[in-house]
Amino acid sequence: MVIKMSLERLKKEMVEMGEFGRDPQRKVESYSDLDPEKGVTRPCGTDANKKARDYVVAHMEEAGLKVKVDKVGNIFGRLEGKTDKGVIWAGSHVDSVLNGGQFDGTLGVMTALEATRRLIEEDHENYRPIEVVVYTGEEGSSFPLALLGSSTLIGKVTYDQALAAKNRDGEILEDTLEKIGYKGDFERKLDDVEYSLELHVEQGPVLDAEHIPVGIVENITGLAWILATIEGEENHAGTTPMKMRKDALLAATEIVSLVNKNALDLLDKYGGSTVGTVGRFNALPGAPNIVPGKVEVGIDVRDVVEENLTFMIDEAKKALKNLEKKYGVSVSLEMPFGVHKAAPLSTEVVDTIELSAQEVKVTAKRMNSGAGHDSQNIAEKIKTGMIFVPSIKGISHAPMEWTEWEDIEKGTKVLTQTLKNLSMKK
Amino acid sequence: MVIKMSLERLKKEMVEMGEFGRDPQRKVESYSDLDPEKGVTRPCGTDANKKARDYVVAHMEEAGLKVKVDKVGNIFGRLEGKTDKGVIWAGSHVDSVLNGGQFDGTLGVMTALEATRRLIEEDHENYRPIEVVVYTGEEGSSFPLALLGSSTLIGKVTYDQALAAKNRDGEILEDTLEKIGYKGDFERKLDDVEYSLELHVEQGPVLDAEHIPVGIVENITGLAWILATIEGEENHAGTTPMKMRKDALLAATEIVSLVNKNALDLLDKYGGSTVGTVGRFNALPGAPNIVPGKVEVGIDVRDVVEENLTFMIDEAKKALKNLEKKYGVSVSLEMPFGVHKAAPLSTEVVDTIELSAQEVKVTAKRMNSGAGHDSQNIAEKIKTGMIFVPSIKGISHAPMEWTEWEDIEKGTKVLTQTLKNLSMKK
Repeated sequence: MVIKMSLERLKKEMVEMGEFGRDPQRKVESYSDLDPEKGVTRPCGTDANKKARDYVVAHMEEAGLKVKVDKVGNIFGRLEGKTDKGVIWAGSHVDSVLNGGQFDGTLGVMTALEATRRLIEEDHENYRPIEVVVYTGEEGSSFPLALLGSSTLIGKVTYDQALAAKNRDGEILEDTLEKIGYKGDFERKLDDVEYSLELHVEQGPVLDAEHIPVGIVENITGLAWILATIEGEENHAGTTPMKMRKDALLAATEIVSLVNKNALDLLDKYGGSTVGTVGRFNALPGAPNIVPGKVEVGIDVRDVVEENLTFMIDEAKKALKNLEKKYGVSVSLEMPFGVHKAAPLSTEVVDTIELSAQEVKVTAKRMNSGAGHDSQNIAEKIKTGMIFVPSIKGISHAPMEWTEWEDIEKGTKVLTQTLKNLSMKK
Repeated sequence: MVIKMSLERLKKEMVEMGEFGRDPQRKVESYSDLDPEKGVTRPCGTDANKKARDYVVAHMEEAGLKVKVDKVGNIFGRLEGKTDKGVIWAGSHVDSVLNGGQFDGTLGVMTALEATRRLIEEDHENYRPIEVVVYTGEEGSSFPLALLGSSTLIGKVTYDQALAAKNRDGEILEDTLEKIGYKGDFERKLDDVEYSLELHVEQGPVLDAEHIPVGIVENITGLAWILATIEGEENHAGTTPMKMRKDALLAATEIVSLVNKNALDLLDKYGGSTVGTVGRFNALPGAPNIVPGKVEVGIDVRDVVEENLTFMIDEAKKALKNLEKKYGVSVSLEMPFGVHKAAPLSTEVVDTIELSAQEVKVTAKRMNSGAGHDSQNIAEKIKTGMIFVPSIKGISHAPMEWTEWEDIEKGTKVLTQTLKNLSMKK
């Protein structure tokens, strides 16, 4: 049976959620309502974050879901099944970056709730329990340790470690959660959970450019940062002859083209989705008439293939070190969080999503995720799948983030059908 | 007759001058006394600048010079000659950059005073009048329009325009000068002035590296700034495929190596003293995981040969514009003060300085000045020469600026002998 969506209800709820953390508080219903300066600011633990959580919980309860909150504030709204084993999770997060959009995270929570409600309303007899999940602190905007809720669920950090994590104001998570009323009293074990789904905006330009409404994520990319400081000699630009300089900028620029070239070479060779970016690049002191004495460089490399990621990292490090000999500069570098390995998602779930999309007649393409998500953690323990919907011009984490309602409708149909198909598995 | 210097007196005065604008106020007598954080801050019109002016005026009067102050605060301490025609100026400035050194400018004023005193003490019968000059506002640290006093003297700006110039606090020069007691009542005409001398620290590394105590400046370099903004598209570094980017940084880095290469090519071809520097280079927004949407670039090119300077400017502008096609970025550029033409100094004065150095047995080399000085203005109207003394490691405009006393002694000998030789010309 093909499910009939109630877009109006979902749209109303998404727009109302989008009011929390928007200053001034107002409803944004269409792309033309957007203000490029004023997005949504709803970091974990803020008053706006509490309001968003309260809104979700109220709607979960209204739908008949039983709500539980774990010790780190992850929220679970449960619909029982015929069995209590093989639970299916569907959800995302409701915290945001500073001045972000209204879809990132929130759309995954509200579409999961909508899909679950549809099953209830259609008297679908789900064999397995379904839990609509809200993960705590996905963004690093408040607690710099991002993916906080999902990291705790999979045991990457303990509940105690997570509760002691400090936000940018120096407040620990435990106090923050108590303040907003989301410090639960249990630790969610994963033994009874079998599948996990997350719908999310792509945050990239591919689906929008190709006019495809749904992406099925096969892998979440591996990621590393290399932060380097290149030090030469700060000198007067007028009085220091060219051949007596140690120009930190001249040395550092080599890295920009190299990182770019290495990524393009891998793409030529293997196809794939390698990206290499120099995003931070600042010459100091920064006056036109002073030869730069220092350049701060921040490199971001990502690949779903481990060997490619290693190649990108090693080549960048080697090139940075080579600058010392070639330019007489000194180079120091660090990798602040080491290497985040790529997370392959479950082929079983990916296949189920693809089948479900065909059943509801929505065009979908397999792709990789270049951004990080809670699903990359969850995938380490549970069979996980992700559904992407387009981001207009690829914009996300910014006030102009937008996804057309018709694409949301298509994505929700696929999510609902997938949830239905998985929930009937015995 | 070879003049015998009193280094002790000059040293004492230089050290005392170096106390004004140093916080905490203290005497710095040797390189090892320097504090790399705490230099001299004495912008035009500050209390410290007033104290330095008062100190100079008191010592001028003590030496028997007649002091006059013009409408924009230029100070002239006059020793009469047998004739009142063909006046010789010798001097520099006593204002400083923020957190600069104690020699830049001040050394040119105090050595001119010392040289003049020596002539008096030796009963030298100078045919021409000598005026020890302190130019107002050489640095742009207070009034962004640098070389303010000398620009007024040569009529590049009128006295009224100069008096209406605003400092960084929005105060006009006229009020500033009245506050510190240096708003004089006359306009200094140049009809009776024939020669001008300025001793200055090199502010570059050449004399120090070559162990030569005195430089004789033949040309003050021509200078232009090209400030460019390169705009691409700010994107998520993880989700934006390499081939869908408009990376402003990748485009902008081409300029750095090009400016450098063009300068080296001209040096290879003509020798000379071409310099080309990208001193400002800042990618925005500056996070490792965001493809830079904008880069601010500040280019400084200098040459004493007009065609070379034009080549450097034209090539940089052309290359910037070419980025638009090649990378799909947009480029805007401006040249905030157009082109400052190179100022050739007087061959007559240069020859006299060289002869004088030989007479007092001080090694000297002809060179160009890569930095700007009041003398570049004065040279437009008066036969002008400059004497450089070494800057250790080329450092200037910074707390670690230093010149050894023995080099100061040698430079002062050359200045005194030159002043003597010029003053006897009929």
